[in-house]
Order: sequence, then C-alpha cells, then structure tokens
Amino acid sequence: MGRWKPDARTRLQEAALALYRKRGFAQTTVAEIAERAGLTERTFFRYFTDKREVLFSGEEALRQLLVSALESAPRSLSPIDAVGAAIEAPAGFFEQRRASARERQAVIAENPELQERERVKLASLASLLADGLRRRGVSDPTATLAAEMGITVFRISFERWIDDAGTRSFASIVREAFDELKSVSAGR
Amino acid sequence: MGRWKPDARTRLQEAALALYRKRGFAQTTVAEIAERAGLTERTFFRYFTDKREVLFSGEEALRQLLVSALESAPRSLSPIDAVGAAIEAPAGFFEQRRASARERQAVIAENPELQERERVKLASLASLLADGLRRRGVSDPTATLAAEMGITVFRISFERWIDDAGTRSFASIVREAFDELKSVSAGR
Repeated sequence: MGRWKPDARTRLQEAALALYRKRGFAQTTVAEIAERAGLTERTFFRYFTDKREVLFSGEEALRQLLVSALESAPRSLSPIDAVGAAIEAPAGFFEQRRASARERQAVIAENPELQERERVKLASLASLLADGLRRRGVSDPTATLAAEMGITVFRISFERWIDDAGTRSFASIVREAFDELKSVSAGR
Repeated sequence: MGRWKPDARTRLQEAALALYRKRGFAQTTVAEIAERAGLTERTFFRYFTDKREVLFSGEEALRQLLVSALESAPRSLSPIDAVGAAIEAPAGFFEQRRASARERQAVIAENPELQERERVKLASLASLLADGLRRRGVSDPTATLAAEMGITVFRISFERWIDDAGTRSFASIVREAFDELKSVSAGR
C-alpha cells in the first residue's frame, strides 16, 4: 500500500478549481487538470464525465439533503416553513466546503455557459421541492410558489454566505432571508 | 400593388410555429419555413437571426412593457405591488396573441434547449425588474426578492393563462397568483 494522500476525486477537484481560477474555465484542459493532480486523464474520466462536471458533482448530494429534510420536516409546518427547513439542511455540507464553494462561484460568475447550467440546476431543485410538497399533500399553486420562493431564498443566501467574511453561518443567513421574504411579500 | 397579405414577419412566424408543431423544432429548416410562408430564405434572415429567434423575438417588447410599467407605477406602492403592476402590464400584448402563445409554449415544452433559453430569459427579466426597483430607491435584498417573486408569479400565471380555455384574462390570473403568493409566504 502507498502512503496516504487525499483521494483522487478531491485532488482532481482542487487541481481543476485552481486552474479554472488561474487561466479560465474555457482555457483549461482535462490533461492539465490530471497533470496538476499527479494523475492520468484516464483516472479523471473515472470520476467525471467532463471538466464541467467537476463543478456540478455536488448536485446529487444537495438534492438528497433537500428531499430528506423536506420529508422529515414536522407535518405541522406550513408549506413555506417546511421549505425553509429543507433549505437550511445543507448548512453543514456547505460549511465544510466554504473555501472551495467560493472558488467555484468565482469560476461560474465569469462564464455565461456555466451560469446557464447553474440556473437550470436551481430550476430543477425548485421542481424537486414542489414534488416533495405535493407528497406532503400540498396542492398547487401553493406547492410551486413555496418551492420557487425557497429556491430564491437559497440562491440569495448562498451568494451572501459566499461574500461573507466567514463570521455568519449559512443557516442564520437563510433564516434572515426568509424573514425578509415574508416582510417583502406582505408589502412592507 | 399586389393584394393585401399579412406582413412577411407574421407569415414567417406562423409558418415556423406550424412546422415546429408538426415535425418538431429540431427537424425544421429555415428553407422549409420560408417555402411555407411563400418567401425566400433571404427574406427570413432579414427578420430573424436563426430559427430559434422566431420563438423569442417578442422578448424586447416584453422587456420594454415591464420596465415602463414599473417606472410609471405610483411611488406610494410597496416594492411587491409595484412589481405586480409591472407583471400585469403585458396583459394586452398577450391577449392579442393567445393562440400563437399557446403554440409557442407547446414547442418549447418539447425541447430542453428551448426550455433552457426560456429560463435564461426569465432570469434576465428578474434582473431587469430588480434594477427598476433600485432606480425607485428600493435597496437589496428587497429589490431582488420582490423581482424574483414577481417573475415566479409571471411564469405561473402565464402557464395558467395558456392552459385556460380562454375565459379568464391574464390580468386577473396574475392578481390571483399574487394573492396566493402573499398567503403562502405568510405561512398560511
């Protein structure tokens, strides 16, 4: 057995983010990522379909966190509060990844194609939450509206958390944004 | 002078929608659209950049309607109600186009690339409304939240209006959706 090293997936992700930041997403090749990680291209393709996938591979974990939090939210919660509980659920997942989340966001902000991919991902998370609400017996349009508002809060909170110097938790930012949403929609 | 015919732009749009519906967006060529409209490909390209543009050429008119309605909304309105006034503004524009709007929506619903384009368009309308609110002196996050909620209501209302048998006006559907949004976010 060789000595311990961070696992190949993590090394590839770190190498990719560093290169995307340094020379731009479009200008980076899979060969360069593999080389920087001290691995082969073949290994890269064992973990990721392409270089874009490196930025979006956390999506499945996020989907599962949201769905299971929504499922286990107390039945007594209103639809919007059940969505609030789901949106707060990935807090721990994100807090462990603050530095790389910030790098990732900076890469996406500079590339329209990646921004489009991110928007599509968020739209699909909204559908996921709406489906979860329907399974809780919430009908439409309430299910769609609550889910869409939840994703808006999620997006705004995530950006704030990324921009924050590191003093505030994701969960507290989400709670504050939900309060703001309630006050805005009440017409205050 | 020849006999009167609908203008070339309208004829091209109608021909394109009919073909997209009949054989699918991807399978239709510009040559076929021009032929069906009794015009040349050269004429097509005088009006549209490509065959996708036929479906999205109303966007600029919509942007202008939203922006000018937001600008002229009474200063006394809360941010969410000013957004409500803007979202209702295209009612007349849509009512004149109900049949083609329905055809267009059916074409988009069947093509993931077009759905993505539509989502990007909606995201850009949300930014437009948020900018308009900031010009009215509304600060963030209120401006972003109100704009995003407005676009959610817009999307849901548009879909309902398309699905409706034709008895309800776009404006009344929008007003109802705003009331629902307020009640959902109040946790009812």
